[in-house]
Amino acid sequence: MRMVDIIEKKRDGRELSTQEITWFIHTMSADRMPDYQAAALLMAIYLRGMTRRETVDLTLAMARSGDQLDLHDVAPFVIDKHSSGGVGDKTTLVVQPLVAACGVPVGKMSGRGLGSSGGTLDKMESFTGWRPDLTLAQFKKQLADIGLVLAGQTAVLAPADGKLYALRDVTATVASMPLIAASIMSKKLAAGADAIVLDVKTGSGAFMPTVAAAQELAQIMVDIGTDAGRKTVALLSDMNQPLGHAVGNALEVKEAIAALQGGGPADFWAHCLEVAGHMLLLAGKAGSLDEAKAMVTQARDDGRARQKFRAMVTAQGGDGRQVDDPALLPVASLIEPVLASQAGTVAAINTAAIGWAAVHLGGGRLVKTDKIDHAVGLILRTKVGSQLQAGEPIGEIHANDPAKLTQARAEVLAAITWTDEAVRPLPHFYGTLS
Amino acid sequence: MRMVDIIEKKRDGRELSTQEITWFIHTMSADRMPDYQAAALLMAIYLRGMTRRETVDLTLAMARSGDQLDLHDVAPFVIDKHSSGGVGDKTTLVVQPLVAACGVPVGKMSGRGLGSSGGTLDKMESFTGWRPDLTLAQFKKQLADIGLVLAGQTAVLAPADGKLYALRDVTATVASMPLIAASIMSKKLAAGADAIVLDVKTGSGAFMPTVAAAQELAQIMVDIGTDAGRKTVALLSDMNQPLGHAVGNALEVKEAIAALQGGGPADFWAHCLEVAGHMLLLAGKAGSLDEAKAMVTQARDDGRARQKFRAMVTAQGGDGRQVDDPALLPVASLIEPVLASQAGTVAAINTAAIGWAAVHLGGGRLVKTDKIDHAVGLILRTKVGSQLQAGEPIGEIHANDPAKLTQARAEVLAAITWTDEAVRPLPHFYGTLS
Repeated sequence: MRMVDIIEKKRDGRELSTQEITWFIHTMSADRMPDYQAAALLMAIYLRGMTRRETVDLTLAMARSGDQLDLHDVAPFVIDKHSSGGVGDKTTLVVQPLVAACGVPVGKMSGRGLGSSGGTLDKMESFTGWRPDLTLAQFKKQLADIGLVLAGQTAVLAPADGKLYALRDVTATVASMPLIAASIMSKKLAAGADAIVLDVKTGSGAFMPTVAAAQELAQIMVDIGTDAGRKTVALLSDMNQPLGHAVGNALEVKEAIAALQGGGPADFWAHCLEVAGHMLLLAGKAGSLDEAKAMVTQARDDGRARQKFRAMVTAQGGDGRQVDDPALLPVASLIEPVLASQAGTVAAINTAAIGWAAVHLGGGRLVKTDKIDHAVGLILRTKVGSQLQAGEPIGEIHANDPAKLTQARAEVLAAITWTDEAVRPLPHFYGTLS
Repeated sequence: MRMVDIIEKKRDGRELSTQEITWFIHTMSADRMPDYQAAALLMAIYLRGMTRRETVDLTLAMARSGDQLDLHDVAPFVIDKHSSGGVGDKTTLVVQPLVAACGVPVGKMSGRGLGSSGGTLDKMESFTGWRPDLTLAQFKKQLADIGLVLAGQTAVLAPADGKLYALRDVTATVASMPLIAASIMSKKLAAGADAIVLDVKTGSGAFMPTVAAAQELAQIMVDIGTDAGRKTVALLSDMNQPLGHAVGNALEVKEAIAALQGGGPADFWAHCLEVAGHMLLLAGKAGSLDEAKAMVTQARDDGRARQKFRAMVTAQGGDGRQVDDPALLPVASLIEPVLASQAGTVAAINTAAIGWAAVHLGGGRLVKTDKIDHAVGLILRTKVGSQLQAGEPIGEIHANDPAKLTQARAEVLAAITWTDEAVRPLPHFYGTLS
């Protein structure tokens, strides 16, 4: 097989065969593919697209480029959940304990913060001593014992994706729907999920700015999962404002614990309920989404979910007392309100800018080697449609540096657009695809 | 400037600025451009195209990547001619002496054979002792003394083209009109031509299979030449059958000498007359194409062109007696006729296959290191529209190996399609663009 023939075929808009796609990923993974040929193919894929069959083949080839987990010896049915990333998205911290408490073991490999979006591992490290670096044996043992694991990249999942992504990043071929979908799904397939709930976000704080784009991406991912023999559902959820109120690591952990205790912002709980409900439904634990949601609510109300979360925290070296008393989690030295600069209604929130404000406070990384300050962040109680008087608090900044606090306050205020007219609240969801 | 931004711009179909194109070629020429980024841009250019302005900028940047000749100290007006390549195309050997004999100095840097097309230097090396490797000083001195030079790549013309071509070859981005046009024209501009006559061939023996494709390429090249301030004319000529009768190095040289003496095939002379006429016209030596053609014919008829050719051969170390008596040129040991396998009319000739037959006889190279046998080749007197009886000769094979002779005969016969219906002769030209 000659790479130049494969490039030419895609260049001319023809469909690549399974064999050609598999050979490409295999050769690239073995470091026997010149970067310039891979780059030319990526640009041709960007501009010509891929059929459903091609996208599935690409995803499967990438999934097979590294370890392929089989967790069925410790979990009869493996369910995974993926969020496309957003600001204030601490859903995993609540959903996984809820689902585990309902008798479906969930072992998840998560990532670090990226850009304006926070990362689950960074958030969890707010717990003193908690660590994500488990061996695969430890991962499996904890999954068998507790039914809940939140780990880093314990296995080498889809290493071809890492190589492809590095090349896409420098050749302007990142924003290709089939390539994005294959990147995400290859890791889910390699992690051995029998079913996958995708939380695809759209809006000013998401990778996909429009509902149409999010829907297109979601459909491709659902198609991949389905054709790969996995039960797959995608929820299209709103990211035109932060999810819940808290943005920042320990602040988000506190909000997650509150949700597990029946408190916290209503929009955040509604989100967790929907995601956890779909997971239980896919796992066959309930006959309907309503039934699943009732089970989830019960697991929250009787404290089982919070206990599951606590067990996971302590099993991974964390201080369980911080679950019992979240006031023991890191606290910033400076906490000051942000006051509305004018009277009016919130017309829009630049959600990515809110995420960046938390990063600039020290809650995220600008370069890979930055250390994270788990205490800092912000609470934004104001939502799109909120009506405020000038001087009313819209939230508060948690900082450990006065200059950064001043900057964050300015960034938050600049992120909000006001209007005199009435504004409808934003929906939580735009739809479900399966 | 960031390459990824330039790739993205072209990927999205936007026009690159002069500065961006110049920076790309400059950075690549300095070996500071990763191949994978250049490859991604080439594929984006292939699929998105380039505007006239972009193509001109690319050509100029490439022309400036190496030596830029100025021959005005030895030639008041520099005229160049380029053929897009074909089978039996020995036009340069006849046209350049004709034009030089009419008082317009012509110094040309030529190439070797490529694929099924022969190369001018290979043909000229049929002369014992003739050599193309001149220094620039020797090139200029001969141009001043004789007014006629046929050399190899005496200067480093447009080295960026060589780098780009090597990358295009392995990334399926060769067949892009703006990239082909820029490749050809960058070398012409760097060679310092004030005027350029382009002979763009179309048909079964040409790079461009259709008249429409040849016309598109020709127009882009004329636009480049015009915008770069050079007088440029393109002739669209037929390559659905070999030009003249001879295919093979010494055989073509003999046909060229015959043409300079008033003999040889009529179609070949008609071609030379047209090309030389346009060169004289562009050089301002004639008021009309007809007047220019009359001057050219006169230079042939009074023997001045043949004398000019002889002077060039001897100045470059060749044996002038082989011009006086072409029988002294290399002769093959086996010369056998090819007989028509059936009665009928020639409907079509696979011209590239005829070129390959000559290559397989030893007249061209399959790999770069192959040595050329100057004596071998074939004479094809049959043209599209010729009516023959079974057993009538359609030409002859000149070989030095019986097995190769047998193979060549089969290849020539297989290249001809017969019909019982009447077939119109092919035109020599499809038009002129300026």
